[in-house]
Amino acid sequence: MSSEEDKITRISIEPEKQSLLDHHTEKHFTAGEIVRDIILGVSDGLTVPFALAAGLSGANASSSIVLTAGIAEVAAGAISMGLGGYLAAKSEADHYAREMKREQEEIVAVPETEAAEVAEILAQYGIEPHEYSPVVNALRKNPQAWLDFMMRFELGLEKPDPRRAFQSAFTIAIAYVLGGFVPLFPYMFIPQALDAVLASVVITLIALFIFGYGKGHFTGSRPIRSAFETAFIGAIASAAAFCLAKVVQH
Amino acid sequence: MSSEEDKITRISIEPEKQSLLDHHTEKHFTAGEIVRDIILGVSDGLTVPFALAAGLSGANASSSIVLTAGIAEVAAGAISMGLGGYLAAKSEADHYAREMKREQEEIVAVPETEAAEVAEILAQYGIEPHEYSPVVNALRKNPQAWLDFMMRFELGLEKPDPRRAFQSAFTIAIAYVLGGFVPLFPYMFIPQALDAVLASVVITLIALFIFGYGKGHFTGSRPIRSAFETAFIGAIASAAAFCLAKVVQH
Repeated sequence: MSSEEDKITRISIEPEKQSLLDHHTEKHFTAGEIVRDIILGVSDGLTVPFALAAGLSGANASSSIVLTAGIAEVAAGAISMGLGGYLAAKSEADHYAREMKREQEEIVAVPETEAAEVAEILAQYGIEPHEYSPVVNALRKNPQAWLDFMMRFELGLEKPDPRRAFQSAFTIAIAYVLGGFVPLFPYMFIPQALDAVLASVVITLIALFIFGYGKGHFTGSRPIRSAFETAFIGAIASAAAFCLAKVVQH
Repeated sequence: MSSEEDKITRISIEPEKQSLLDHHTEKHFTAGEIVRDIILGVSDGLTVPFALAAGLSGANASSSIVLTAGIAEVAAGAISMGLGGYLAAKSEADHYAREMKREQEEIVAVPETEAAEVAEILAQYGIEPHEYSPVVNALRKNPQAWLDFMMRFELGLEKPDPRRAFQSAFTIAIAYVLGGFVPLFPYMFIPQALDAVLASVVITLIALFIFGYGKGHFTGSRPIRSAFETAFIGAIASAAAFCLAKVVQH
């Protein structure tokens, strides 16, 4: 809910009820985004370092080399996903600001066209001109509300929270590091990579199942199926890495 | 534009004009998503394999090991991002279907509540009951349109295209592979990793600048700034990988 909407007098909903709804929606929205970022980071973090380590182990590298490659990859991946996600979010915020400015200019310069666009949006739902005209006219009299309406219903853009870019980047990066740590853990204690890889496979498959189950639970899809799908991706990725590493090594 | 909307008789817009608008919107929407997927894949593909290779080179690995690790990582990354993206898109499609079913049930079981929700959505824009009542009543008489309205304006969900999940996964995976190939290329011809890494740094920085510029151009943000930001992420990621690899190797 944008702050512009907060300023608009709500006539039909009691203020206390509305503010409860707003608060509930905002909390729900942010919690959902944090969960999504954790899922994003852990998904790749559990899978790629695991596959890389397994591939190198199969190519007869030492645990030392596997750990070197693994930790380097986790750092690089966390930075790439984290910083990349941050810049992407900032870019979206800039995009929103630009679109809003343009929409604002159109409302001032060509109000008839903008009013026709509102009409078109509502007409798609089988609403007839005599039914939607009062709505169009109400919006025309309230430029701020009209702008919010166009941003939301014509362009489908939500006003981005400036703090979310940083939060999101940080969450994804940390999640990636924690995910990546799991498969690399055995290599820190078992000097023979071909021994360590067995422990790594067991630990990581269990982690993938648990994580996949949790992912399914949190996103409301079938947790058992999600657990198997997640473990499957890890298995495929490590099989591919294993085979390619052997091929490259001849 | 969903197929449900296509079926609704449009009273105020001529059919030919509407179908031109639909076609234009759909093409624009898909092209934007393909560009977004390419950006996603190439961003990480150019950065992580580059940083991994640079890190291992600095830790005195041979080009052979660097290539083994690099190619294994590219395969694992492409699979993780590609398959992961595919499953995420399927999960969103399932989510949409479930939400639509629930909304449909609510429209049948508690139409007064649903009508009040429509009222609440429009009231946020300063529209008064006597202005929005005809719209609410029009929707109540047209359950399919009402459902579409709730999906779009209450839940903010777009109907996902089932083909997009596969397209998206494929695009991201291929983009990652092509991105990853760039920094690894020198290691295929230069046996000394510490010589190959110089070529890799030069080639990859140039690629990051070009890609960052293109990214800025396509997303409508500042291309020069985007070029520097993208190269900067690559530099930071490889510096971190380089330092950590040295630390792990003692």
